[in-house]
Amino acid sequence: MTGGTADDGPVASARGDGTTRRRGRPPRTESAGTRDRILDAAREEFSARGYEKTSVRGIAKAAGVDSALVHHYFGTKEQVFQAAVEVAFAPAFAVRDTIVEGPVEEAGERMTRMIIGLWESPVTRAPLLAIVRSAVNNETAAGVFRRLIAGQLLRRIAGGLEVPDAELRAELAAAQLVGIAMIRYVIKVEPLASADPEQIIRRVAPVVQGHLTGR
Amino acid sequence: MTGGTADDGPVASARGDGTTRRRGRPPRTESAGTRDRILDAAREEFSARGYEKTSVRGIAKAAGVDSALVHHYFGTKEQVFQAAVEVAFAPAFAVRDTIVEGPVEEAGERMTRMIIGLWESPVTRAPLLAIVRSAVNNETAAGVFRRLIAGQLLRRIAGGLEVPDAELRAELAAAQLVGIAMIRYVIKVEPLASADPEQIIRRVAPVVQGHLTGR
Repeated sequence: MTGGTADDGPVASARGDGTTRRRGRPPRTESAGTRDRILDAAREEFSARGYEKTSVRGIAKAAGVDSALVHHYFGTKEQVFQAAVEVAFAPAFAVRDTIVEGPVEEAGERMTRMIIGLWESPVTRAPLLAIVRSAVNNETAAGVFRRLIAGQLLRRIAGGLEVPDAELRAELAAAQLVGIAMIRYVIKVEPLASADPEQIIRRVAPVVQGHLTGR
Repeated sequence: MTGGTADDGPVASARGDGTTRRRGRPPRTESAGTRDRILDAAREEFSARGYEKTSVRGIAKAAGVDSALVHHYFGTKEQVFQAAVEVAFAPAFAVRDTIVEGPVEEAGERMTRMIIGLWESPVTRAPLLAIVRSAVNNETAAGVFRRLIAGQLLRRIAGGLEVPDAELRAELAAAQLVGIAMIRYVIKVEPLASADPEQIIRRVAPVVQGHLTGR
């Protein structure tokens, strides 16, 4: 459901367990609800303000909890951001197996549909915009982006290709889709900004496929 | 040399001429040097702080002049930004004729070389980064980007294509290059971040060409 459990677990333990019991620390039964509420608040704060202007204190205030509780569940601001990004990209991580496991000659279309679909959905577009803005402006946020997108999503796609330079190929394919996201959804240049999504997919999927498996 | 003369001229006249002589307005002979000094200061301020955090007052201070003089030469903050962007993109505007006027079957390689070349040069990379950061974060800056890049550069390239959907084609080609800039120079994802520029051009130029003239 919420991402980041695997990565944040040890951090949360290191901070929360084995130390003296802090004021505001919840009984175990409340944990899941509180954690989700903090994560929702974090997504909204990062979306509205970007990485640099968001503070753990601000997230805590928006979630109606003490700052110590945010640190308890997630660790540093960077780790809260990573958890929020993982939630935003959850649909992408969920379908990455689809990209890799279907017929390789249709991987380009599956990858293109997935990325365009994420940007077309009003639910995922706002957090994606926030992530792009933060990653472009802040080196720490860019690092989170690199680890999650490159380290997990692209390397996984590359792993399914069985061609030389698979990682470079996956990145050149991703570059086509990142550029379309920038021009269509971020800068909003016409006619691309208003083009029919299916028309874009028809034109771009063969290019993405070419990067992945061409020549 | 410096861009924006054509666009800013009328604005400067409307503000500077026909009104009562303002304190700090320079004699005509100083104009060029002062204007360039303000423009240099503006580029550094926008590069360092981004669009939102830069103020006309800060630019004036960095240039060692009165704020009124910045308004006199350029108009609003948006207009100073536009002039600074035009200077940063001057090499691109200078070579756009080369893109359009050479053999159309090599336009993809010329366009790819031009954009990669701009990002590879340490002189143009910093202002390009500043432009991208500003355009991603601020709607006014995005508008300047749209007008200059889409309105001038892309539409000019599209005009030389003589194919249906020329503007959409030019934007899909640009999207491939914008995405590479994002992944290689802004977010710095490996292996693309360290790949040899010639290798990138070899792989990407045919894709750009395909967008421009394919099928």
